[in-house]
Amino acid sequence: MIKVGIIGGGRIGQIHAKAISKLEGAKVVAIADAFMNDETKMKIANNGNIKFFKSHEEMLEKADLDAVYICSPTSEHVKHAKDSIKAKKHVFCEKPVSFNLDEIKAINKLVDESGKVFMVGHNRRFDHNFMALKDAIKSGKVGDVYQLKISSRDPGLPPIQYIEKSGGLFMDMMIHDLDMSLNLINKKPISIYATGAALVNPEIKKVGDIDTAIVTITFEDNTMAVIDNCRLAKYGYDQRAEVHGSLGSAQIGNEKPSTLIVSNENGVTSEKPLHFFLERYMKSYENEAVNFIDSINGNDKPKATITDAYNAVLLAKAAAISLKEKRVVNLSELD
Amino acid sequence: MIKVGIIGGGRIGQIHAKAISKLEGAKVVAIADAFMNDETKMKIANNGNIKFFKSHEEMLEKADLDAVYICSPTSEHVKHAKDSIKAKKHVFCEKPVSFNLDEIKAINKLVDESGKVFMVGHNRRFDHNFMALKDAIKSGKVGDVYQLKISSRDPGLPPIQYIEKSGGLFMDMMIHDLDMSLNLINKKPISIYATGAALVNPEIKKVGDIDTAIVTITFEDNTMAVIDNCRLAKYGYDQRAEVHGSLGSAQIGNEKPSTLIVSNENGVTSEKPLHFFLERYMKSYENEAVNFIDSINGNDKPKATITDAYNAVLLAKAAAISLKEKRVVNLSELD
Amino acid sequence: MIKVGIIGGGRIGQIHAKAISKLEGAKVVAIADAFMNDETKMKIANNGNIKFFKSHEEMLEKADLDAVYICSPTSEHVKHAKDSIKAKKHVFCEKPVSFNLDEIKAINKLVDESGKVFMVGHNRRFDHNFMALKDAIKSGKVGDVYQLKISSRDPGLPPIQYIEKSGGLFMDMMIHDLDMSLNLINKKPISIYATGAALVNPEIKKVGDIDTAIVTITFEDNTMAVIDNCRLAKYGYDQRAEVHGSLGSAQIGNEKPSTLIVSNENGVTSEKPLHFFLERYMKSYENEAVNFIDSINGNDKPKATITDAYNAVLLAKAAAISLKEKRVVNLSELD
Amino acid sequence: MIKVGIIGGGRIGQIHAKAISKLEGAKVVAIADAFMNDETKMKIANNGNIKFFKSHEEMLEKADLDAVYICSPTSEHVKHAKDSIKAKKHVFCEKPVSFNLDEIKAINKLVDESGKVFMVGHNRRFDHNFMALKDAIKSGKVGDVYQLKISSRDPGLPPIQYIEKSGGLFMDMMIHDLDMSLNLINKKPISIYATGAALVNPEIKKVGDIDTAIVTITFEDNTMAVIDNCRLAKYGYDQRAEVHGSLGSAQIGNEKPSTLIVSNENGVTSEKPLHFFLERYMKSYENEAVNFIDSINGNDKPKATITDAYNAVLLAKAAAISLKEKRVVNLSELD
Repeated sequence: MIKVGIIGGGRIGQIHAKAISKLEGAKVVAIADAFMNDETKMKIANNGNIKFFKSHEEMLEKADLDAVYICSPTSEHVKHAKDSIKAKKHVFCEKPVSFNLDEIKAINKLVDESGKVFMVGHNRRFDHNFMALKDAIKSGKVGDVYQLKISSRDPGLPPIQYIEKSGGLFMDMMIHDLDMSLNLINKKPISIYATGAALVNPEIKKVGDIDTAIVTITFEDNTMAVIDNCRLAKYGYDQRAEVHGSLGSAQIGNEKPSTLIVSNENGVTSEKPLHFFLERYMKSYENEAVNFIDSINGNDKPKATITDAYNAVLLAKAAAISLKEKRVVNLSELD
Repeated sequence: MIKVGIIGGGRIGQIHAKAISKLEGAKVVAIADAFMNDETKMKIANNGNIKFFKSHEEMLEKADLDAVYICSPTSEHVKHAKDSIKAKKHVFCEKPVSFNLDEIKAINKLVDESGKVFMVGHNRRFDHNFMALKDAIKSGKVGDVYQLKISSRDPGLPPIQYIEKSGGLFMDMMIHDLDMSLNLINKKPISIYATGAALVNPEIKKVGDIDTAIVTITFEDNTMAVIDNCRLAKYGYDQRAEVHGSLGSAQIGNEKPSTLIVSNENGVTSEKPLHFFLERYMKSYENEAVNFIDSINGNDKPKATITDAYNAVLLAKAAAISLKEKRVVNLSELD
Repeated sequence: MIKVGIIGGGRIGQIHAKAISKLEGAKVVAIADAFMNDETKMKIANNGNIKFFKSHEEMLEKADLDAVYICSPTSEHVKHAKDSIKAKKHVFCEKPVSFNLDEIKAINKLVDESGKVFMVGHNRRFDHNFMALKDAIKSGKVGDVYQLKISSRDPGLPPIQYIEKSGGLFMDMMIHDLDMSLNLINKKPISIYATGAALVNPEIKKVGDIDTAIVTITFEDNTMAVIDNCRLAKYGYDQRAEVHGSLGSAQIGNEKPSTLIVSNENGVTSEKPLHFFLERYMKSYENEAVNFIDSINGNDKPKATITDAYNAVLLAKAAAISLKEKRVVNLSELD
Repeated sequence: MIKVGIIGGGRIGQIHAKAISKLEGAKVVAIADAFMNDETKMKIANNGNIKFFKSHEEMLEKADLDAVYICSPTSEHVKHAKDSIKAKKHVFCEKPVSFNLDEIKAINKLVDESGKVFMVGHNRRFDHNFMALKDAIKSGKVGDVYQLKISSRDPGLPPIQYIEKSGGLFMDMMIHDLDMSLNLINKKPISIYATGAALVNPEIKKVGDIDTAIVTITFEDNTMAVIDNCRLAKYGYDQRAEVHGSLGSAQIGNEKPSTLIVSNENGVTSEKPLHFFLERYMKSYENEAVNFIDSINGNDKPKATITDAYNAVLLAKAAAISLKEKRVVNLSELD
């Protein structure tokens, strides 16, 4: 039974707690959060089986833990990751590990020395649809891969205050798609080109960000990927991908609340996609937890490593440069 | 916190135990099953919180229960239902309550006298797709209902031994569709006509049953419903329905493991439907448990009553007569 | 070059004229119609290549014809068919040939004696979708056929005056689906059951007809077919069919004006089906003409014969009796 | 009645002849082609109504023509266009008018002076699906347009010899998609970026071309378009587009031979898209001819002008530079 402590008891921390609760081989025994109120504590205390701490240092010192989930704000990730690794814990760290490539490298070094499992919260790698697409590629259904296309649109704009601290669209939103490109293509990216603008809300431009973008990545053998992002899709959370290759193509589409189709004078109408990422990707968090625990037990390997985190952040940084300087960026410039 | 005892610890009993475990306001505290082995007990004992009994009598006597789930073989339902009602418990009884209409009437009388909740396991009423279809009707999206069509096909034949004791296709398989017809049309059925045969496997004819059928029901205002059943669909569990009315039509289709679509030389291929009823309808068992517990707490009413059970069995019986006598059967003949 | 004369220059006659004009091996040289105005004549005269006659007798006598298309009102079909056969012409007769089974038998006898081609306008047999479904069956894709389901809904009610003379829903509308059942199942029908009512417009009941129906046909080996019809579908002309068998199922759906799909706050909406039978089935008239001309030239056989006409009318009559007498009708009662 | 002469009696010339033959207000009266054999002539002579000439000069001199269709090889387009304009004819010229921007400008000047209609064969503008997409945009269904995505894949590679003379993928294949981007976005393009390679067949690289590409266009207000092309799609001719905007998205998909769907052990399979551009876009040639003739008669304006031709070729040229120099190209560099 793997004993898990969680740093950060907010929304994503609670999601992971719930996911872990469904596993037979792991349980959450501690949560470190300075700002959690009593009501929330009571709700997730699991009849007193979970202990609460004011700081991650205290939790790491006093709780009997095998593994730590880092679910704190991004700005705290590096500190929390380092401390947890030093405390000899297996670590699951929410994405992005850091906006800073050197910091990620430093953690990578600590991970190598620790011999413990370090896994990164690229949860879409565990989504049943993206896994089905990856399986289709791996099983040869599309043959040699020529092109990958990913569409990712949010149901609505987050508050400007959130956007200001988010690291920007590439780091905050497209990071998932950039990681998925690497995961699905599984080759070395060579160059990247980004176009984008604040088309949904001009206010976003004022804080130095964009809300709509198209990014093209060229890989070492000229396989190519294109990602389109938009912060607003009136019809809900839009998550699609398509791989085209020598034998054909494979695509995945949106999940819907039901299969209902209504035909009337206005046309033939099916439901909008699931509106929110938690509904759409809930199952992925459970699969992710299974992979983490299995890796700790030596029965599997993490499907999202610190190296994967580095590579995704590298692409996000390169995309930001491309957009700013209106030019193609070779990834060798940054690495 | 509603304390639940389960009579019958087999597959369906365990499904309900799992569904109840997800609720905050209820917990399983006892299971009565004469044949449960220790391994199974251990697996579902929930750290000793569930007690096991050899008989339902013992459980009803010794365990502190608010409600009972009857998950025993159909032949035991009536006895278990009566004993549970007499023991002043709220009762959830798996379908079919009985093959015998008089027995169901007798239970109905006991239920009326007891003042307790009695709910029947017509789980499809709690399926998100069928609920979406019902909502579409109730909200007026199809206008006045003219026709209902239900397709229900199993992924494969059960063993002949199972079929022999099943009560026949109408009672064992179509019962869900007959109930759903009543639920969706919500009017008094007048007559029924059934055609059917053992087309999948002639052995089924030898035990007096069929594996393929089409049944038409005419309701009091001439609204009409048609159900087609087949015990074999090579592509998986096929569950569809369509309602047509004055403003248009509404239909629901199959659930699939993923949204993957592969296009190649053979065509454009999506996945087969979910293969098994447990995968397809798992969520319905949770919704069903919520409705039962809410009804006990006075916050809702059971969506599947003993009267619903009676009406579905009545239609199944009438369909069997129609098939045997190759004629239309007026339901007034039986009622 | 097959020279064709057309009896009846109304809508359906003009459709056939247009279909024939696309063939290389045939041309329309004469049209007999007592009521055609000069404007219409001019429009379809094809630069004077088509001659117009006031009566079919005159056309049969004076025009140099190889074949005749009978596109007159149903009540005239028998007379026009007989006269054309006697004049030693190949004959294409619109459906229904007659509401009277004996009359059809009489024509059948004349056809046998004439040695000429006699083909009936069951145009759906030539529709690319229904042909694809038939090919799927013939090529073994569904294995042994268990069930056939046909849905056929009109976009709107015809005028009551039309309905009064139409022969009733079974003869006027369902006749196509009854014929298609025979065509796709290709076995001997044994019994039929119909339920139906005037649900769209009660006025239709007053003239002795219905607007909504479900009909079940049982074939000699217990293969079963079910047809649902409705005179009103607010979303357009609905034409679907599905065959289920031992290896799986095959279905065909509606044709749409375009593949446009709009996703917005209201859902994900595709276009309504093509609204009118002429749009939906236009191509079938061309394929039909090809089959007729090829048959005349000895290169093919008619895909819709006088026997097919007889069998479809027989089913329509049996369905009407079933509805009226509220009972299953054995086809041996009529034949 | 507009009298049309066609320069070039090959495949595309015959397609236009056929399209014109369906119009009431126009007819083909002459074809100029030095290499047409007698058999082909006979086949399309329309009973002697079409006269054949050895050269376009002879046809322009001797035939009584209102309009000329230029369907000769691309290298002849400019000469044939100039001669036809000088002969005071309305001109329809197949795309691309020329690979040379100055030549197109020169023709543009002649057109302005002539006062005659000059239309370019961007047939996809007349496709019912692309028109439905454009209508969706124009009618405000997607709100402000943020992104356009076009997928265009050929069913198979043309011969290397064809590719060598084709002008390259951007000029030969993507030209349609570039034009469609301009047509749908209807704003001034600012910059373009292309990535591409010979992934299907390395031989194509040897002749200086590619077979797979992704191109991003940024427009004046930062609206963005992305086009993906591949010369090989094993599942047939793939033609899709999607527009995303402030109110939602609109997309169009592939046309199929039938609506057949087969469900079996392998999944749920629909047909491959129509395999060849002639099947897919046949209707567009008719709509195009209608627009041309209506423009000649003053009842409409050409939907694809010499300016449209110029802009599409400009984008194709810029894309080629971008690919070669691995950089973003500002269109102001070329114009």
